[in-house]
Amino acid sequence: MAIQLRPAVVNDLPGIVALLHDDVLGADREHAELAPYETAFAEIDADPNHQVIVAVDGHDVIACLQVTALPCLTHGGRRRAQIEGVRVRSGRRGDGLGGQLVGHACDWAREQGCGVVQLTTDKARPDALRFYESLGFSPTHEGLKLPLEP
Amino acid sequence: MAIQLRPAVVNDLPGIVALLHDDVLGADREHAELAPYETAFAEIDADPNHQVIVAVDGHDVIACLQVTALPCLTHGGRRRAQIEGVRVRSGRRGDGLGGQLVGHACDWAREQGCGVVQLTTDKARPDALRFYESLGFSPTHEGLKLPLEP
Repeated sequence: MAIQLRPAVVNDLPGIVALLHDDVLGADREHAELAPYETAFAEIDADPNHQVIVAVDGHDVIACLQVTALPCLTHGGRRRAQIEGVRVRSGRRGDGLGGQLVGHACDWAREQGCGVVQLTTDKARPDALRFYESLGFSPTHEGLKLPLEP
Repeated sequence: MAIQLRPAVVNDLPGIVALLHDDVLGADREHAELAPYETAFAEIDADPNHQVIVAVDGHDVIACLQVTALPCLTHGGRRRAQIEGVRVRSGRRGDGLGGQLVGHACDWAREQGCGVVQLTTDKARPDALRFYESLGFSPTHEGLKLPLEP
């Protein structure tokens, strides 16, 4: 069966969460229970400026990402798109699926009037950096994080 | 008169755009006309997940930033906050104003239930990197951009 790329629906969520766990950094930090992901997905799904895109092979979710269109003041008030949470199932990496998924997100971003697509990748993922560079992304920026205490 | 930090209103926009121009990278890439910024500000202002914060001294806008609360699936469905477009007027840098502004954005992010604040800074701005590190941000990620053709 052909692989299909499409917006995620709530029934894809168990498959998406399995992908988040199937990751060298995600294995330790993701939750076992589905409820917090359901809450986040409901918020994403209700806002047309967000989209979760999945690649499915039959009923199997084999890759996912989240893309957001952000209004911004800088660069002449240009909208920008941001990609988060790109994951490809471990047995399906290296055959172009991730690139197709990111390309699909870029098409969506262009339709939303975005002039640039941005993302950050953990410096602990050198393969991911090479992957994004192979798609034409330039690592022009430092990506910084500050955890917040509740 | 004391400096005040508050959400931006549309009347602050000429002052904000002047700040965007008063920047080593912004000088070449920002627009002379106000209209595209008005369009972007209207979109930001209509969405409670976005906020532009300004520092004003009397009627003068002397610093600004944009902060966004983003629902995300990764990290257990944790909301994250993202800061963009931090600018401090050239004559007012180095006296803690930028740190106060970022701190104000972090307070807002905490109120929105965000577990982390993230931002990227151009590698052509080494002073900015040191500034964010002094506030506790860690440069754990590479920040990548891909311009989109219309």
